Amino acid sequence: MMKYKQFLLLFAGVFFLVSYNVNGQVTDANTPLHLLKPDYPTLYSAPEIVEVKEVLDRVYKFLDKATPAGVISLKDSSEVKDFKNLDGNIAFAPASFRLTSYEWGVTYAGMLLAGEATGKDYFKEYTYDRVSLIAEIANQHRGKSFKSSPVHSVLQPGALDDSGAICAAMIKAQIQGLNANLDPVIENFIDYISNKQFRFEDGTLARNRPQDNTLWLDDLFMSVPALAQMGKRTGNKKYFDDAVKQVKQFSERMFNEDKGLYMHGWVQAMEERPQFHWGRANGWAIMAIVELLEVLPKDHSGYDYVLSQLQAHVKGLSKYQDGTGFWHQLIDRNDTYLETSATAIFAYSILRSINRGYIDKMSYSPMAILAWNAVSTKVNEQGQVEGTCVGTGMGFDPAFYYYRPINKYAAHGYGPVLLAGAEMINLLKANDFEINDSSLQLKVNK
Amino acid sequence: MMKYKQFLLLFAGVFFLVSYNVNGQVTDANTPLHLLKPDYPTLYSAPEIVEVKEVLDRVYKFLDKATPAGVISLKDSSEVKDFKNLDGNIAFAPASFRLTSYEWGVTYAGMLLAGEATGKDYFKEYTYDRVSLIAEIANQHRGKSFKSSPVHSVLQPGALDDSGAICAAMIKAQIQGLNANLDPVIENFIDYISNKQFRFEDGTLARNRPQDNTLWLDDLFMSVPALAQMGKRTGNKKYFDDAVKQVKQFSERMFNEDKGLYMHGWVQAMEERPQFHWGRANGWAIMAIVELLEVLPKDHSGYDYVLSQLQAHVKGLSKYQDGTGFWHQLIDRNDTYLETSATAIFAYSILRSINRGYIDKMSYSPMAILAWNAVSTKVNEQGQVEGTCVGTGMGFDPAFYYYRPINKYAAHGYGPVLLAGAEMINLLKANDFEINDSSLQLKVNK
Amino acid sequence: MMKYKQFLLLFAGVFFLVSYNVNGQVTDANTPLHLLKPDYPTLYSAPEIVEVKEVLDRVYKFLDKATPAGVISLKDSSEVKDFKNLDGNIAFAPASFRLTSYEWGVTYAGMLLAGEATGKDYFKEYTYDRVSLIAEIANQHRGKSFKSSPVHSVLQPGALDDSGAICAAMIKAQIQGLNANLDPVIENFIDYISNKQFRFEDGTLARNRPQDNTLWLDDLFMSVPALAQMGKRTGNKKYFDDAVKQVKQFSERMFNEDKGLYMHGWVQAMEERPQFHWGRANGWAIMAIVELLEVLPKDHSGYDYVLSQLQAHVKGLSKYQDGTGFWHQLIDRNDTYLETSATAIFAYSILRSINRGYIDKMSYSPMAILAWNAVSTKVNEQGQVEGTCVGTGMGFDPAFYYYRPINKYAAHGYGPVLLAGAEMINLLKANDFEINDSSLQLKVNK
Repeated sequence: MMKYKQFLLLFAGVFFLVSYNVNGQVTDANTPLHLLKPDYPTLYSAPEIVEVKEVLDRVYKFLDKATPAGVISLKDSSEVKDFKNLDGNIAFAPASFRLTSYEWGVTYAGMLLAGEATGKDYFKEYTYDRVSLIAEIANQHRGKSFKSSPVHSVLQPGALDDSGAICAAMIKAQIQGLNANLDPVIENFIDYISNKQFRFEDGTLARNRPQDNTLWLDDLFMSVPALAQMGKRTGNKKYFDDAVKQVKQFSERMFNEDKGLYMHGWVQAMEERPQFHWGRANGWAIMAIVELLEVLPKDHSGYDYVLSQLQAHVKGLSKYQDGTGFWHQLIDRNDTYLETSATAIFAYSILRSINRGYIDKMSYSPMAILAWNAVSTKVNEQGQVEGTCVGTGMGFDPAFYYYRPINKYAAHGYGPVLLAGAEMINLLKANDFEINDSSLQLKVNK
Repeated sequence: MMKYKQFLLLFAGVFFLVSYNVNGQVTDANTPLHLLKPDYPTLYSAPEIVEVKEVLDRVYKFLDKATPAGVISLKDSSEVKDFKNLDGNIAFAPASFRLTSYEWGVTYAGMLLAGEATGKDYFKEYTYDRVSLIAEIANQHRGKSFKSSPVHSVLQPGALDDSGAICAAMIKAQIQGLNANLDPVIENFIDYISNKQFRFEDGTLARNRPQDNTLWLDDLFMSVPALAQMGKRTGNKKYFDDAVKQVKQFSERMFNEDKGLYMHGWVQAMEERPQFHWGRANGWAIMAIVELLEVLPKDHSGYDYVLSQLQAHVKGLSKYQDGTGFWHQLIDRNDTYLETSATAIFAYSILRSINRGYIDKMSYSPMAILAWNAVSTKVNEQGQVEGTCVGTGMGFDPAFYYYRPINKYAAHGYGPVLLAGAEMINLLKANDFEINDSSLQLKVNK
Repeated sequence: MMKYKQFLLLFAGVFFLVSYNVNGQVTDANTPLHLLKPDYPTLYSAPEIVEVKEVLDRVYKFLDKATPAGVISLKDSSEVKDFKNLDGNIAFAPASFRLTSYEWGVTYAGMLLAGEATGKDYFKEYTYDRVSLIAEIANQHRGKSFKSSPVHSVLQPGALDDSGAICAAMIKAQIQGLNANLDPVIENFIDYISNKQFRFEDGTLARNRPQDNTLWLDDLFMSVPALAQMGKRTGNKKYFDDAVKQVKQFSERMFNEDKGLYMHGWVQAMEERPQFHWGRANGWAIMAIVELLEVLPKDHSGYDYVLSQLQAHVKGLSKYQDGTGFWHQLIDRNDTYLETSATAIFAYSILRSINRGYIDKMSYSPMAILAWNAVSTKVNEQGQVEGTCVGTGMGFDPAFYYYRPINKYAAHGYGPVLLAGAEMINLLKANDFEINDSSLQLKVNK
């Protein structure tokens, strides 16, 4: 970015100098004023593929070191090297992120996609190593009553947060070719989602927190991608039916048609429901839908509905993107802060939607590229993703959302950055972009 | 507040210290990042009843001293102690606020409610002393042609501003038990509202300023609460009918259904009416409706309409509350300043609506508490209410509203703070609140 | 402005001093707080006609010097004095603005209107001299194959930008009395607009940039005023029909009914069209409509439609004017900068609409005066217009519009300032305004 800015400054300098020499000042008559270089806060052009890959590599390097795929003994903190008999006195090697969290499910999926997009195996191996490790421990700990297990949430999921994101990533890893015994873990997760998680009578996945009978928009992502992958894996239509049902029943209750945005939480007992259009939860929703469309058969009766819901959501989001390329913490409140994880998820979802043809390429690629360029400025030299809102419950007042802290260790930003970068590379492989009369546009080859 | 912030800082400090010691830095793996304390600008929790009462006491002490219930001689400024024969050469004792203003009508009502909520008689005695004094002077000056009288506007009201707010407070004082000869004053006020104020042919209360045939949203409050109290006092349905008619006929012309907000002024002659959704006037409207519902018989044909109009207005307001808890001077313009009096009125009206069951408690109590917490930061150490927009006419351009001055002697903030604090106490008496996964929520006892 | 501010400060100072002396501080009881002088950033009252004229004079003086009506030899840069035989080796005398640009078409029209409004001939002579010169060169260069001609775009228009604005100004100059052989030039322009410019099959004027089959809102102004003037000049209904058709067919595709604003660009191939409500393009649209209504016969079948479209647009604009009187670069995005040229065009269009009776005078004159007052602060001591967005293509992402540079040599601000000032003078000639209870209002003489 520095280099780019310096170049622009240099260019602008020469430009002015030349102009100035004509008759002493820049005027309408001696200078094409419309070509004056704007002072953009982020790169205003399509990046090169190598530039995107470099960002992904930085994130990879940071995460590979920050989250070793290892196990230690709880007795003396020594590394466990013999994986034959893993007893209950073990823990994951010290790491900066939790390997079994839903956020890391997104990271696993992100590494797989980054591997596909870049052709570099180290990305997918990041995921292979860690999901294999999780499965290995789980397979040995299953059925034993250890006081604590590092994979407790895998063996006995207590929430959709424990299940959906990792499950979807594990199925993807299998499909990409990972040879490990993930099946018992995957089936346990799916059983939890399909049969054990609390649901409304109409089948909508719900929670009893923070209030009884509450819908969390986030839960679309914690369930739909796993159901969708399971549908693909098994060919069993019931998984697709359930996934489509969730999208439909959440959207009917929580999608604001005027704004084209979802509210974050929906509590059954409330007569009137305050709407807070929280960025990241809208991200989970759109990403869930994109993941569903990826595998949903086109002849499924719900396909058109899901696709039109995606299109309506993208249209809504397009109305609120900031000039920097970011979206705000509360999407429709421009006095809330610019948030990284939501922007990264939107970037990924819109880029993939373009790449898959769900939405119009000419319309939406400039804003999607801008979103990626914004996100890329938040990946620091160490490969850390800055500016992400920490884990967030559900609130019914604006202060709750306005003042959520941000932290570079908030895990929610990492997977989306990997996913967005990967789809950015895919976009660049298949399309040309240009600065057309100062504006970033798809180059149409006639 | 100071103490609270210090506590938070201390807590956060310990929290970080402990976390840090684990492995040298705060990470996703060693720290529940979602519990990081946000840097809220105002208290983010339900206050204690004693804290609310302390704010009310501060306001009381300031006002009791700033507005003595006394009379002086105009000849030598000496205190008049003999109230038997009050001639025309008297004035109210020097005060910082005008005892016969509509704003002080709100203050009288606020003191009465604060007395009820806290059980402390000094609040209601503030009102008793001053409305008795007004009535005493009026009863002696009535029919005499003194050049000037401190109660001239009481004897010969020239506008709804002179009449409605004080009249309603006087009836409330009577009902609470004040034994003073207020009847002639009350009846004179009601006669003015019912029979003398200019109206449209359809009965809508109007003014001929700033332009002919103008509706001022403010006038809902300058009439409806007095009519409502008179309905309660006399049992005569005509007062309720008139009050309901005003709400309906103002709302049909001035309520913007999309926004859920009222415009400030409506001039009959205009073909198209610029809409400025001024905070305080929206406050007067919602407070008028809340006051009407307090006494309107549930079997009155207009009850459902009035209730649904209240609900629509609260819903509209909920969309625009700032993250600090305040509302903006122009409610739907987030680049206008945060205004105290409107916020206090909204806090009162929403709190009372919750306490009376007009609106959903679980939905709206967090934002109502946040609004009170914001307002309480504007009561300074001396008990003065800061940040209130001064008296405001009607404008047809944005600059007029954007740049209205604020002043701590703007009388409009005081009554609403007392009312809001009183209903806050009532809310706290009957309900429990908790920080539930970092968010302020009604605690449902299962 | 300085003087005004100093006066206010002085007044406020005296006011406070007097108040203070009563009992030591300003209170509600001793001071009419509602009369406290607000700290307006711009003049908050109707200006005097002489003040407006002084602004126009400053702009005139700057432009008259910055754009001499002369020709030089390309051989030795000497002034060409013999206009009998102009060969191909000539250029316009060095100037700060381009005499044949569409922006200068607006300036020519602005000078003509300023001349009418002020009664000063030097304004109209500015236009007479320059359009005569253009026509003289064109008439001599026509049909000759000079390598380059300073009036190449007049002889062979390549875009609506070359044609419509200057054409309309030339016809106006003729009608005002200019005696010069403009006819061949005018007819060539009209031929281009009517017969040569690319159109959709339904006759809508379009371009094939930046993408094929693109509507530019700007093009309404680049065509409709010329067609309208031609209709007036010839009495041939076909010109009015075409002008009305453009307004209708652009509006059906590009007017957002909810916001009351137009989007900037419309690309046929897009399935979904991102909406950026760019200020200046909305200006071109409303000004085109105002120009059309000026000459469109009231009994034309399209008159009511065009009038109602104007009214809807003014209503939309009224919702977004900033407290300073300006509009934002993206009208509905209050975090984009305040832009001069759009504000000037809106000021002109709304003022003329009031003066012609298209819209309600009482409703809209305060905001129109405020807009002029804002614009006038942007005319610097040298008569330059500051704060104008440079020439702007079409973008499909927010950054493009947020960060467009501003420049005092951006030609788009000058004509609109002249037009707005002229209509401001016309407004002041025919109406009285007053500060009525602190607010700027039309004074209704009863």
